[in-house]
Amino acid sequence: MKAFALAADEGCAVRFFRVTRVAVAAALLCAAASVARAESDSLPSWNDGKAKQAILAFVKSAATAGSPDFVTPEARIAVFDNDGTLWSEQPMYFQLAFALDRVRALAPQHADWKTKEPFKSVLAGDLKGALAAGERSMLEIVSASHAGMTTEEFAAIVSDWIATARHPRFKRPYTELVFQPMLELLAYPRANGFKTYIVSGGGIEFMRPWAEKVYGIPPEQVIGSSIQTKFELRGGKPVLMRLPAIDFIDDKAGKPVGIQKFIGRRPVFAFGNSDGDLQMLEWTAAGQGAHFMGLVHHTDGEREWAYDRKSPIGALDKAWDEATAKDWTIVDMKTDWKVVYPKPE
Amino acid sequence: MKAFALAADEGCAVRFFRVTRVAVAAALLCAAASVARAESDSLPSWNDGKAKQAILAFVKSAATAGSPDFVTPEARIAVFDNDGTLWSEQPMYFQLAFALDRVRALAPQHADWKTKEPFKSVLAGDLKGALAAGERSMLEIVSASHAGMTTEEFAAIVSDWIATARHPRFKRPYTELVFQPMLELLAYPRANGFKTYIVSGGGIEFMRPWAEKVYGIPPEQVIGSSIQTKFELRGGKPVLMRLPAIDFIDDKAGKPVGIQKFIGRRPVFAFGNSDGDLQMLEWTAAGQGAHFMGLVHHTDGEREWAYDRKSPIGALDKAWDEATAKDWTIVDMKTDWKVVYPKPE
Repeated sequence: MKAFALAADEGCAVRFFRVTRVAVAAALLCAAASVARAESDSLPSWNDGKAKQAILAFVKSAATAGSPDFVTPEARIAVFDNDGTLWSEQPMYFQLAFALDRVRALAPQHADWKTKEPFKSVLAGDLKGALAAGERSMLEIVSASHAGMTTEEFAAIVSDWIATARHPRFKRPYTELVFQPMLELLAYPRANGFKTYIVSGGGIEFMRPWAEKVYGIPPEQVIGSSIQTKFELRGGKPVLMRLPAIDFIDDKAGKPVGIQKFIGRRPVFAFGNSDGDLQMLEWTAAGQGAHFMGLVHHTDGEREWAYDRKSPIGALDKAWDEATAKDWTIVDMKTDWKVVYPKPE
Repeated sequence: MKAFALAADEGCAVRFFRVTRVAVAAALLCAAASVARAESDSLPSWNDGKAKQAILAFVKSAATAGSPDFVTPEARIAVFDNDGTLWSEQPMYFQLAFALDRVRALAPQHADWKTKEPFKSVLAGDLKGALAAGERSMLEIVSASHAGMTTEEFAAIVSDWIATARHPRFKRPYTELVFQPMLELLAYPRANGFKTYIVSGGGIEFMRPWAEKVYGIPPEQVIGSSIQTKFELRGGKPVLMRLPAIDFIDDKAGKPVGIQKFIGRRPVFAFGNSDGDLQMLEWTAAGQGAHFMGLVHHTDGEREWAYDRKSPIGALDKAWDEATAKDWTIVDMKTDWKVVYPKPE
């Protein structure tokens, strides 16, 4: 950003001194460029382009009284998918990595897992085998890793894992594999009176322990999938036990359902990255008044990953077509983002 | 309040002039009383008593950095039951009155209801007969009155009813049968950095259309019972259809579950009025750090209603015993409240 601003300033200076006949006009142009730069500093990790300009224009207009696209403060609801939108989701959803780590950690207490699928395959490092039985395998792994403890115990388990686990490719904590440009895209609408929510297919209680620190999003603004919990007295002390049963799947057509359930208002700003976000984007797009829909397209195999239509994780196919047809904003990670991840701490 | 403040001032003046030897001490006492009065003005409809003092002391302490009961701003979560706590619930839950009105309004389109229970009894004005089959009757009435339309259509139906329906005893809109002292008890913690939530057994989408205007509580801070909804395209337009199936019952042991699901933090301030609120109060009481638990006891048959242990609606029995044993605050409506309802507009 620094380099870019410098070059622009030099260009202005050069034009100003060389073309004396249009010196005033040139000075005005330079001033305008300077204003544009100051504004674009809200998204410093974004290259100047269609996506950045569309975001800046929408947020500014939504927050400006009298603008045709003004949005009243209480209606400024912005929703963001998490996996693949705010942080990476390769080579597997980070929550799946957590679940597998958890199964490995619990294995010594479950001798039968050595011979029982899907645990046998998990312990042998065979993910494909572990997930061979599809949804049933997944449910067994989730039940073993996410249920059977209190909500507070689970939060502590997640906090411990997130503090110690490292991503296999980048060898960094998972919470450092969040997208720097998206952190700015959370902060910028917030600075303009938007309330930012996560609306993720991932587990609500898997995200809450760290979402406030990492994204600035408090627990009550995290919406996600959940398992059932049950209030009971354990030794006279009230606890919420996590049960091995699905409560709500906050994905695809579940996302608008989750949004209405938790927020009770329709968002005016929605960002996703895959077909799992399509209905959330459609729901936002069908609102009255101004609204903005965006998609992150993973095009950067070097700095992150490149995948879309055929990816087994985070497939972007139907949502891409609809975004193209309806002129929603599509972020090209490779060309739109100056950096992908924050600098290592 | 005006009369009370005046009398106190006169007393101070009298003491000040009569007892010249302790004039300075008396003046100091008067000054202290004046400070106490200024503070108590936050709850002007509350008589000075144990309940009012406990509330004022807790909120002040929670919001004062350095106080032993200081609560960090983000943890200042206050939850309130609705029926019987923020507004009346007699002679029947107001939402049940809505449901019965709705059945009557829809009857012309359902010729079979004339002979089919529970509708036949509803249309004959026989509530007892209508609810004879217990939960099954209730579910049929809820399904007929609350399902089969989009979320937006339902919000419009509720808004229309709440604007036009009148309470049978007071002949006032239901939203005027909210408790003036409790409106103050919402505003006072809010003014001290608390986030106020409704946590009600009533329908979440029945409360949201009017809760912001009446209570200052936005839709995203309303938690309640819900029926299932389904995202679908109707004529190409995305809608959320309300289905005749229970999603979540936010009552009794469901209240802590709802609190954790929606807020993800434990409240530090909780107010209810019946056994349906017991687990919410227990959950709040078991939190670390400062917390406050309160109950409204309906003791005023003249201005409102008097009922507790044996009431078919809003029974206060086990929660009363636990509140007494654990020294939670119990508000005696008759003696603690100067007024019950706001003045008619």
